[in-house]
Amino acid sequence: MPVNRKGYRGRALDLLKNTGVNVGDTITVVCDNTEQTGIVMPRYEHANDDVHIVLKLKSGYNVGIIVDAIDRITTVDVADAVSVDPATPTPTPTPTTMTPEPAQTDAKQITTKKRILLLSTGGTIASRIDYRTGAVTPVLSADDLQEAVPELGMIADIDPKVVISEYSENIIPEHWLQLAQSILEHTDASTNQGARYAGVIVAHGTDTMHYTSAFLSFALAKYPIPIVLVGAQRSSDRASSDAATNLIGAARFITRHGGRGTYIVMHEDTSDDVVACHIGTRVRKNHTSRRDAFKTIGQAKPAFTISDDVITSNHPVAASSTSVSVTNTNTNTQETVGAIRFEPRVALDEKVALVKYHPGFGSDILEHIINTGYRAIILEGTGLGHVGRTAYTQIRRAVARGIFVGMTSQCIDGRVRMTVYESGRDLADMGVVPLNNMIPEVALVKAMWAAGNASDADGIKKIMLKNIASEMT
Amino acid sequence: MPVNRKGYRGRALDLLKNTGVNVGDTITVVCDNTEQTGIVMPRYEHANDDVHIVLKLKSGYNVGIIVDAIDRITTVDVADAVSVDPATPTPTPTPTTMTPEPAQTDAKQITTKKRILLLSTGGTIASRIDYRTGAVTPVLSADDLQEAVPELGMIADIDPKVVISEYSENIIPEHWLQLAQSILEHTDASTNQGARYAGVIVAHGTDTMHYTSAFLSFALAKYPIPIVLVGAQRSSDRASSDAATNLIGAARFITRHGGRGTYIVMHEDTSDDVVACHIGTRVRKNHTSRRDAFKTIGQAKPAFTISDDVITSNHPVAASSTSVSVTNTNTNTQETVGAIRFEPRVALDEKVALVKYHPGFGSDILEHIINTGYRAIILEGTGLGHVGRTAYTQIRRAVARGIFVGMTSQCIDGRVRMTVYESGRDLADMGVVPLNNMIPEVALVKAMWAAGNASDADGIKKIMLKNIASEMT
Repeated sequence: MPVNRKGYRGRALDLLKNTGVNVGDTITVVCDNTEQTGIVMPRYEHANDDVHIVLKLKSGYNVGIIVDAIDRITTVDVADAVSVDPATPTPTPTPTTMTPEPAQTDAKQITTKKRILLLSTGGTIASRIDYRTGAVTPVLSADDLQEAVPELGMIADIDPKVVISEYSENIIPEHWLQLAQSILEHTDASTNQGARYAGVIVAHGTDTMHYTSAFLSFALAKYPIPIVLVGAQRSSDRASSDAATNLIGAARFITRHGGRGTYIVMHEDTSDDVVACHIGTRVRKNHTSRRDAFKTIGQAKPAFTISDDVITSNHPVAASSTSVSVTNTNTNTQETVGAIRFEPRVALDEKVALVKYHPGFGSDILEHIINTGYRAIILEGTGLGHVGRTAYTQIRRAVARGIFVGMTSQCIDGRVRMTVYESGRDLADMGVVPLNNMIPEVALVKAMWAAGNASDADGIKKIMLKNIASEMT
Repeated sequence: MPVNRKGYRGRALDLLKNTGVNVGDTITVVCDNTEQTGIVMPRYEHANDDVHIVLKLKSGYNVGIIVDAIDRITTVDVADAVSVDPATPTPTPTPTTMTPEPAQTDAKQITTKKRILLLSTGGTIASRIDYRTGAVTPVLSADDLQEAVPELGMIADIDPKVVISEYSENIIPEHWLQLAQSILEHTDASTNQGARYAGVIVAHGTDTMHYTSAFLSFALAKYPIPIVLVGAQRSSDRASSDAATNLIGAARFITRHGGRGTYIVMHEDTSDDVVACHIGTRVRKNHTSRRDAFKTIGQAKPAFTISDDVITSNHPVAASSTSVSVTNTNTNTQETVGAIRFEPRVALDEKVALVKYHPGFGSDILEHIINTGYRAIILEGTGLGHVGRTAYTQIRRAVARGIFVGMTSQCIDGRVRMTVYESGRDLADMGVVPLNNMIPEVALVKAMWAAGNASDADGIKKIMLKNIASEMT
């Protein structure tokens, strides 16, 4: 058995050596008459910490245990290096502390283990915490990530690749194109019908993960294999990290459910028991720090919930997202495309502005947008889709200049309805296009994508009004 | 008894005449072997509808009943004109279909009925529906409103006044000043300690009601009597209008609870049983059409819930909002003001921009804002309070130019924390000020108010970081 005590030093390293324990082993530690059983994790911290060993518990939590407090260590199961190395698909014994995939109990099925492409883009999920300062920096590669979550290797063979290394606040639309191209190149699913991979996991920062999922939903609509974005609100090496649970949930969704569509998989609630799988165009980060920050908008539940190996479909919208028909945006015809056909449209034009209206909104900002080459404006109006009269002149001018103007609501939830009140009717008369219950951020991304696939405002309008990937429900 | 069949015509009018029923009477109507008991409501519709009579049920719902379907009408209680006319405060008999205010059962207490100032600004709550088209137009005055909800007169003596007649998407900051001045003038509470009125109800459109409540929270912080904004998602004359329930809830909150602070009272859920009373700086319109569209941010429950005559305080933040200390914004000193002292600061400067960052955000928009005299920028950053590197140059320039730059999160819920990630630390180093868990819209309004009360960015910063009206919790 190879020696692996990655990242350990000083007294913590001494303890592992003296007890013959390696990273990946499952051990039971007795401290203060309480037992904790978990997998020994590698250390990644910048801090010169030599007094803790880190265990990943069955709950998914990592705990740091002080060496001096340990009364006894018992090895429950010895790590099998093969289980974290997808290049050597030999059957591995099932560690007692992991929930086994039922398929694994049948030895013959090991050879049919599915393959998943794991693309890393950076973000907290691929970060390490500095325990001295609490600061987090992006340093984990896709390989490190896979090693940090050895359970992944039991669910599927994972091929890790690094595409980008950025926190998601620094992700720009160019990265979206890069990511879409990377998925197309590596999976080659347009010709092979996804035979090479069962699906793609994209490890992504959470700040703008829903913008990226919206873009992939449109650019790779009807892609033959599922694309699942996964983030973490706590870095992968940290106690209480949600990275492992979310990654495992994503892998299970791909191997057990599959189907077309782009999804985001994150914690369903503050427990570690259930992860949520959201439609990529119907989800939003609604809390700055909670592990269940991502919420499906307009439904009490996400499309799917994944609890251990049970995947529950919560509402019919999930089905429609896997079989919507699309517009041919090159010709702007409303042809109906069969359920199998996929045609990537990896293009965009960034010249789209998202404008949130409010009392005292300076219409000089709209004026600037009109005069500087923007091709579309997504209004975050008030209520059912309104802006005040003070912005009417600029909105008329925008439409006259051939700029697409679409209306969403800053309420976030609920439908835009521009027939009920005078303001809505006035705006509709001016040519403002109501975008139903499209989430403002999704409307922005869709408009960038539409502007990249159409030559004028009419073309953009046709694409905006067509339901491509369940963005309107 | 005076004849009042306001708005009725044709066969509906004939029926009322033949049965001797007037608007305001409580009647039981038998149709198809089912009984419905309610108060006969005046008609306001534009439609030439002469075949319905409208009853307000005990639930608060209005129902339209087709004249031809009515088998029998029994008068349960005859309207007493006095009960809806605050100028003649004679005791009125208690109609059997209304939940009586306990105080009303003691005849002597009638003479001590509290007074409420009802200010109307327009909005759905003061609107009529055209049943032919479903369109809603603003035509009800504050007097009409009071007449449409006769129960109000049983809770308090209502003095109605029209201040503005605008749907709230057309409310501009100048209206906020007008409204604050109107409250100061009519209640004169700064000298009389609120003796004249127990509180103020402001009937307001829902689209921007939370912006107005934020302004009043700051400009009239520590006002001796409660200011309660009330809206409706369905117009007052409409079946299923929420106007009556919300107005009655507001009046009950004022007469039974009182205390300082600006609040918003709206439906707590989709039932008509409970209304929510939200802190005016911690609330947001989160749905385009639901009657329970307004939600307290950062808490599962609003500050108070009002069910019939029971008022429940749900969390301690409510208490703090009635006794926070304020900064003297004229001198920018951090003096502690006693619980009683009130000093209005009815001023603002509109030159504040709300900027929502997103991937592909055009920093040319920030450039425009910097160059056109804006005094403050409220960023709606991503996650814990970030923007991408592509906006750094402009943010540095804004701070250098003496523009206050504050950070909130587009997640809406949760705290901004700019120490965890590199991006946050970079932005803090540039001088961007984290605004804790202030809601972006509230931060915008507060910055306008702060800019009206301070001469430079440092002065604005001091005000922004001081908790004035529970805007940070």
